[in-house]
Amino acid sequence: MDKKLSTEPYKGTRDFYPEDMAVERYIFDTWAKVAESFGFERYDASILEPSELYRSKGAENEELVNEQTYTFVDRGEREVTLRPEMTPTVARMVAGKRRELSFPVRWYSIPNLFRYERPQRGRLREHWQLNCDMFGVDDVASDIEMIALGYRILLAFGASPKMFEIRVNDRTWLKLQLSDYGLSEEQMKAMLTLIDKRDKIDDFDEEAEKIAGKKVSLDFTTPNPEHRLMQVIEGLKALGIENVVISPSTVRGFSYYTGTIFEFFDTASENNRSLLGGGRYDNLTALFGGDPVSGVGFGMGDVTMRDFLETHSLLTKDVKTTAPTLAILPLDATHNLAAEVLAEEFRSAGVRTAVDLSDRKVGKKLSAASDAGVAYVIVLGEDEAASRSYALKNLGTGDETKGSAEELAKHIAR
Amino acid sequence: MDKKLSTEPYKGTRDFYPEDMAVERYIFDTWAKVAESFGFERYDASILEPSELYRSKGAENEELVNEQTYTFVDRGEREVTLRPEMTPTVARMVAGKRRELSFPVRWYSIPNLFRYERPQRGRLREHWQLNCDMFGVDDVASDIEMIALGYRILLAFGASPKMFEIRVNDRTWLKLQLSDYGLSEEQMKAMLTLIDKRDKIDDFDEEAEKIAGKKVSLDFTTPNPEHRLMQVIEGLKALGIENVVISPSTVRGFSYYTGTIFEFFDTASENNRSLLGGGRYDNLTALFGGDPVSGVGFGMGDVTMRDFLETHSLLTKDVKTTAPTLAILPLDATHNLAAEVLAEEFRSAGVRTAVDLSDRKVGKKLSAASDAGVAYVIVLGEDEAASRSYALKNLGTGDETKGSAEELAKHIAR
Repeated sequence: MDKKLSTEPYKGTRDFYPEDMAVERYIFDTWAKVAESFGFERYDASILEPSELYRSKGAENEELVNEQTYTFVDRGEREVTLRPEMTPTVARMVAGKRRELSFPVRWYSIPNLFRYERPQRGRLREHWQLNCDMFGVDDVASDIEMIALGYRILLAFGASPKMFEIRVNDRTWLKLQLSDYGLSEEQMKAMLTLIDKRDKIDDFDEEAEKIAGKKVSLDFTTPNPEHRLMQVIEGLKALGIENVVISPSTVRGFSYYTGTIFEFFDTASENNRSLLGGGRYDNLTALFGGDPVSGVGFGMGDVTMRDFLETHSLLTKDVKTTAPTLAILPLDATHNLAAEVLAEEFRSAGVRTAVDLSDRKVGKKLSAASDAGVAYVIVLGEDEAASRSYALKNLGTGDETKGSAEELAKHIAR
Repeated sequence: MDKKLSTEPYKGTRDFYPEDMAVERYIFDTWAKVAESFGFERYDASILEPSELYRSKGAENEELVNEQTYTFVDRGEREVTLRPEMTPTVARMVAGKRRELSFPVRWYSIPNLFRYERPQRGRLREHWQLNCDMFGVDDVASDIEMIALGYRILLAFGASPKMFEIRVNDRTWLKLQLSDYGLSEEQMKAMLTLIDKRDKIDDFDEEAEKIAGKKVSLDFTTPNPEHRLMQVIEGLKALGIENVVISPSTVRGFSYYTGTIFEFFDTASENNRSLLGGGRYDNLTALFGGDPVSGVGFGMGDVTMRDFLETHSLLTKDVKTTAPTLAILPLDATHNLAAEVLAEEFRSAGVRTAVDLSDRKVGKKLSAASDAGVAYVIVLGEDEAASRSYALKNLGTGDETKGSAEELAKHIAR
């Protein structure tokens, strides 16, 4: 009991003090509002998932589960993983009710996700992520809508289209382009993984030659206009979305993607990072039995989102303000209870009201309220309690207004 | 890859399909709204905490951590626990910034918490909990305010005061009453634990006698009016809160409580359970070094909250509705993109709008929209696309209104 405990959070995780939490909530609320404007419905699940959910796609995933996730065995000998991504969970849930759900299903969630790796800028051990998915639709319009949703979300934060670039690609087209090289399934997989890392490595050409056994050129031609990828780009244009480029090297890490893939990239040189990534995955629910339900979806993280907002000065001061509108300052502790009674009147009139119950002098209470960003104060002493008439001070302008609680609540509402 | 995966969530956890998620969000939003009306600011932290945070209060807690929590060792040899309660975390955070924070601090959070035990009604392995805490105030008005906050939350859900009972007690008074029995610290602890279980066991008198070495009577007298417990009750009366009883057997499980303790109990015989529990803990931050910062707080869980709302028929149908306001139904897939363009017009006018991108016939699309609880539909074919004039059908009344997107968006807003 004498040993002092550390006040630090667990490595790679964050404490959200009110000011940071306010930014986090602003991000979540904006995500939710735009997703709902598109008719998306919110869902959630536990962060605990049976580990087999992530092991199911072969050896590649075995390694991922063993080395990059929090996985442990519970006392009932069940292997449990803290979810590293949401797509397997949503596929599980859709598969579980596929006979009852009315497709197309549009779902979104804001889960926290865990990965066990060395924390670095933009990548922590725990982060939150907006996940939007549409199930049961194959039409290219669904790919277009998902990208449009991502675009509208960024604009809702005040971003302009020139602050980010939408990179699109298509796994089927990518494979078609690579088909000239006669790659085996194994070689194709290795090649896609290599292409995914292309911007991070120097010796791409050498490595590609090693895999293919011959020189590989990635100067892809533009697909013909009938190709789905070109339809995606045309469709986005019809929606007024022009900051789109074909990106042959955009692969996305997850092996479950089968068609259109997309990534939103910050164009600011100091934050040259992916903000959002997603694609079409048409076979994922088949892991749970039955006919597969096609899906298309994306994820965008809170850490990269906040970095983007800060990079482009899109976080205004009022986002971070968490102070109540009104603080009632009892002249001394004998008026604390009367202050609580008065506070109730303001609260029931819709005014966010706190009472300063500390034992410091009223002058200190006043400066604390001012420092915290409180808009109005009322000092409560003998006279005010007896007359039920109060002086409301506006800390911004210094103006004072006198009246009953009802009158002053109306004054604040105006 | 051929083995079929289960679609079940991990044992003792829940999947939140949209209808359940809507109820969950209604609960969270109501909690947040009332807490904020009292000037509480929201915070959060990771679910991962160093295990020592829960081991720090002696052997009793060792057992708790080892047997009732999810605790594992990470690959950096750190012992990690999925947080079983929020109070140690908030104490850690307050202690970590005690020199910068402006007290009194009013904070709330809605964390998910984990306990490793056999799932049963009202107790799952993962649940969410509203946590409200006030730090840096000793005055009895802070105890009163916390209880008033819990009361206002239940009333905000439409509850009437006769649906629940507020049980109050005081650890200091409890210990004073027991002081006649000359108990050692060890015996006192055992006695409090026994009193806590009083309603669940048959042989209380016997067990109490075993601990004390003599007969124990719990017919406590009412404290005198100067006692803090009576001031709490009087203060609540001043705030119009009358459904309060002194409850000598209310102890609360956590050993860190030092003064006032309280519990809200459902009065419905079929749901005879605690809805909210809390109390004053004046020494908790001392574990992190420095002078202790006094605290008073409570928690209320989502599972018991929902049971309460269902028991008293306080969950109305509209809480569960997640359907968009408007569905645009393309006559066939060739109009999908035009439908997306039209949808954008409604979304930017603030109407929640989805497009049915499925390949079924328009009659099926119409009945699916109706089943989902969509309020309005527009069928989009050649004529509508060309004329930019649409027929908006109200699925509730059957009325049809014709006009441009702008006119119809205004019609929906009215």
